Amino acid sequence: MNLRVVLVSPRNPLNIGAAARAMSNFGVFELRLVNPYKVAYLEAKSAVKSSAILTNAREFDSVAEAVADCALIVGTTSIGNRLLEHPLRRLETGGKIIAKAQGPVALLFGSEKFGLANEDMSYCHWLMRIPTREEHGSMNLGQAVAVCLYEIVRNPAAVRTKPEAKRAASAEEMERVTALLEEVLEHSGYVHARVEGSTRMKIRRLVRRMELNGHDAEVWLGMLRQIKWKLLN
Amino acid sequence: MNLRVVLVSPRNPLNIGAAARAMSNFGVFELRLVNPYKVAYLEAKSAVKSSAILTNAREFDSVAEAVADCALIVGTTSIGNRLLEHPLRRLETGGKIIAKAQGPVALLFGSEKFGLANEDMSYCHWLMRIPTREEHGSMNLGQAVAVCLYEIVRNPAAVRTKPEAKRAASAEEMERVTALLEEVLEHSGYVHARVEGSTRMKIRRLVRRMELNGHDAEVWLGMLRQIKWKLLN
Repeated sequence: MNLRVVLVSPRNPLNIGAAARAMSNFGVFELRLVNPYKVAYLEAKSAVKSSAILTNAREFDSVAEAVADCALIVGTTSIGNRLLEHPLRRLETGGKIIAKAQGPVALLFGSEKFGLANEDMSYCHWLMRIPTREEHGSMNLGQAVAVCLYEIVRNPAAVRTKPEAKRAASAEEMERVTALLEEVLEHSGYVHARVEGSTRMKIRRLVRRMELNGHDAEVWLGMLRQIKWKLLN
Repeated sequence: MNLRVVLVSPRNPLNIGAAARAMSNFGVFELRLVNPYKVAYLEAKSAVKSSAILTNAREFDSVAEAVADCALIVGTTSIGNRLLEHPLRRLETGGKIIAKAQGPVALLFGSEKFGLANEDMSYCHWLMRIPTREEHGSMNLGQAVAVCLYEIVRNPAAVRTKPEAKRAASAEEMERVTALLEEVLEHSGYVHARVEGSTRMKIRRLVRRMELNGHDAEVWLGMLRQIKWKLLN
């Protein structure tokens, strides 16, 4: 991922550290800081859990210098109104564009209190907004970085993949459970000895809805066998 | 959104506060805490920026009680290996299921240090994993909450919407820019007085690639008029 996270005038060491941690979580390694509050930067760097990302972070005096080598510069904002000077994309859309970008991309985050200044935004090709509630749009800096990076590395194909689950029970296993459950229900007097077709189908559907895995099917068979034995003895 | 965020044994007041803030950002209002570290909980509640979410948070002695009224219980984890007892879904998949769930959903987050215990997980229908790097899978609690809630409220349809940009320049405006640019290039001697068709088309395409908005088209026309005037005088 040819992505640089640029924090403009961050003031809180915990936020700087949190941004670096989220970068490490999502595999983005180049952190740049423009005029960070010195005390905060030093404190973040000296924190016990400080990462290589923070140690290798580069400091710049201006946004212009921080983004000089980037082909696409994107600013983040929580305010939609004042942004008429720039195209504004929701994170869902903007993230996809950043993920597919060919050249180096700079993703800018403003200070905790004021966000990006208009001057900072003038270096941006467009702005991006995390779809927060109108009544409470402003996110914590570290959380905003995490959410943006997640969207950028997010894999749309994953939505269509199956969960990493145990092997599902086979039709045969499910049928054995069904048959045994039927027997148990008969022996218990819940249904008549000769189960009608419609009742049998109801039980079959019931067992299918359990979405058993292979192991659980065995467990159920064991339990039902035991119940049946008890009923008959 | 019929979603409850359940923090199990959280220890850091900043994380409790950050979880509440992310909930407010993404419009999820029911926070539940199971055995929070008392000092941390009180400190988070008394923080200046403490939200209504935190004030209204409910405390429970056990996971069972905290999720008793929920129809779907999902645990979060950063570790894939020990989870063979449960189906494990990536956030991209699990988030969609949670967003579509009919009944109340509980989303569980474990303590900062240990995550959810096996006992806690046993109450879950399935587990969910944020797709972090294998080498650094564990996220900060507040950031993990933010990322999960973002995915759940994330709007897939937004990816297909257009950016909220200024009105694009009309074909007529673009043609006026093209014609004026042509004139300027003629007068400047860049191209011959009678521009060839292919050159005209090249200029037209060039202008189209600028993706002008209406306002910028006016600005360009003003600049070109000035340049033309200068060239002719």
